[in-house]
Amino acid sequence: MILNELLNKIVPLDTESMRNAQIRLDSLTKPLGSLGKLEDIVVKLSGINCSSAPKVDNKAIVVMCADNGVVEEGVSSCPKSVTASVTCNFTRGITALNVFSRLTQSKVVVVDIGVDADIQNDAIVSRKIRKGTWNMVKGAAMTEEEAIKGIMTGIEIVKDLKEEGVNLLGTGEMGIGNTSTSSAITAVFTGEPVERLVGVGSGLSKAAYINKIEVIKRAIEINKPDANNPIDVLAKVGGFDIAGLTGCFLGAAIYRIPIVIDGFISAAAALTAIRINPKAREYMFTSHGSAEPGAEIVMKAINMEPMLNLNMRVGEGTGAALGFQIIDAAMAAYTQMGTFADAQIEQYVPQE
Amino acid sequence: MILNELLNKIVPLDTESMRNAQIRLDSLTKPLGSLGKLEDIVVKLSGINCSSAPKVDNKAIVVMCADNGVVEEGVSSCPKSVTASVTCNFTRGITALNVFSRLTQSKVVVVDIGVDADIQNDAIVSRKIRKGTWNMVKGAAMTEEEAIKGIMTGIEIVKDLKEEGVNLLGTGEMGIGNTSTSSAITAVFTGEPVERLVGVGSGLSKAAYINKIEVIKRAIEINKPDANNPIDVLAKVGGFDIAGLTGCFLGAAIYRIPIVIDGFISAAAALTAIRINPKAREYMFTSHGSAEPGAEIVMKAINMEPMLNLNMRVGEGTGAALGFQIIDAAMAAYTQMGTFADAQIEQYVPQE
Repeated sequence: MILNELLNKIVPLDTESMRNAQIRLDSLTKPLGSLGKLEDIVVKLSGINCSSAPKVDNKAIVVMCADNGVVEEGVSSCPKSVTASVTCNFTRGITALNVFSRLTQSKVVVVDIGVDADIQNDAIVSRKIRKGTWNMVKGAAMTEEEAIKGIMTGIEIVKDLKEEGVNLLGTGEMGIGNTSTSSAITAVFTGEPVERLVGVGSGLSKAAYINKIEVIKRAIEINKPDANNPIDVLAKVGGFDIAGLTGCFLGAAIYRIPIVIDGFISAAAALTAIRINPKAREYMFTSHGSAEPGAEIVMKAINMEPMLNLNMRVGEGTGAALGFQIIDAAMAAYTQMGTFADAQIEQYVPQE
Repeated sequence: MILNELLNKIVPLDTESMRNAQIRLDSLTKPLGSLGKLEDIVVKLSGINCSSAPKVDNKAIVVMCADNGVVEEGVSSCPKSVTASVTCNFTRGITALNVFSRLTQSKVVVVDIGVDADIQNDAIVSRKIRKGTWNMVKGAAMTEEEAIKGIMTGIEIVKDLKEEGVNLLGTGEMGIGNTSTSSAITAVFTGEPVERLVGVGSGLSKAAYINKIEVIKRAIEINKPDANNPIDVLAKVGGFDIAGLTGCFLGAAIYRIPIVIDGFISAAAALTAIRINPKAREYMFTSHGSAEPGAEIVMKAINMEPMLNLNMRVGEGTGAALGFQIIDAAMAAYTQMGTFADAQIEQYVPQE
């Protein structure tokens, strides 16, 4: 199968480049290791790039947009039509994601992977699998073939961006109902109770919040997804957006591009990608800790920590875009700071 | 006394401007409140500016540089001479702070408030109180008059920057030994045991770490600073850098400029300022949570939470500079996002 062949291409990071990056970091005029996670970022970028002079000057955020059949169960405070409206608004430059992307000169790549509307917009990449998934409380959200097609879509989009010269990726999404699918996926993979994962999304009432939890539990009970088979989980209780993002994370590892996780939905896709191939984790960077309670649990499951604590829950890829600022800062320190030799001071080394 | 007259000028934030800012935020095309702390930032900036159209386009980071007599007790892994060297390097554009300041077009204002060297550099503001404090394990680090002079220096520098049009301030410092003074101040104000506050600073050995704890404890025992008299605490176990920064925080409140706290040392100064006048807190913004263990304890004492979790411990003002990026992002969202009317979608409101 093509997917498996591609996955076999994923190899670990280049340790020599990582060592060389750390040597340069240690020569900069600061206490050893004192740039903390910024140093980890530079080292990891070097390992991914097989070079201790990595570049992050061509950035893109891939926004997977799709509808979810489960919305008919009243799990969201927004009408389904918002998915199509916001998907189109990404091309008008007025969303939070557009604003934050401009801060780091990042391209926004909007992908219609399953929006329930006929979208006529040349600025949107049309890769629609179907007009939204089926309602997961009545059976699988999609077939296994569709789940794989979603993953392959993400991988192919990353391949195209790599060929265009993109060297830093971010993930984003738009899909009313996708905190429900993300909660379901996370519950299955981690074994955490649904109650601990679910938040009020875009603003649910108490009654609607209780209903959301019940709906997700029912979807898991009816479908009985196999936690050891990530494709099965994705097909039964996932969404096309999450399938596409899972493909983006796998594609980033296959084509060696650093990729930044946005909030809860992206993190659920990152977890799915890691369950498919654990080596994919090495290519991932965190950004913010979402206000969605499930986000923290996914972060623990993938053993990563967010860099930003902003209590945001916009989605779209907004957190990833702000994460780009930190990666830029890390690279600026690495390339622009003086060395101890330049600074004409003694190195800050421990004295016994 | 002049200081008290100035402190009487501190008034609460303008609630009408804050309300108007929130109304605009709620009209933007995103779920209500979903920009989290970015919304809090915009509202607070509006309250400080007495305008729901605040500006943060003229930024400066004030770096207070001073030596600490306690260094002769072996509390730092760096020789004292590093203070003067790095102070001068701030004017050469090669420090981490310079690099991060350039990312947000921020000016770096380097102040010699007590460096133990004759510094001849026109790019450094010369406000030296004395060539370093006395060794606090042998008595008070400075006199009360010097502590007040340090505070007044910070206030006057902020006044000058306000007159130059600066509308966003950050804090920074350089002073070998200043994690020891910050730990002492924090221990006195919070009652926390010194052991919980002290870290390895720029890279201490185990023996030196134990010595550092003992030295700080001894300084507190010998001086018996009065926790209810912040000037007494500052004079006995503080430093000129911390006195100057305390003045910056008070000055920011007096002259109504938002001010960003950097790491542990700046946070200890923020705590001192709040103990002098609690209203000063309303003008403060956090940036990162430093790797220094004391930083978390000060943040709790001032009831604030860092926005960045980067495990940095460079000092200088590096965290504040990265905090500026987040404030810029908040203002970009506020000024550039579309409204629900622009976006032609229904508002995201809870459905019952």
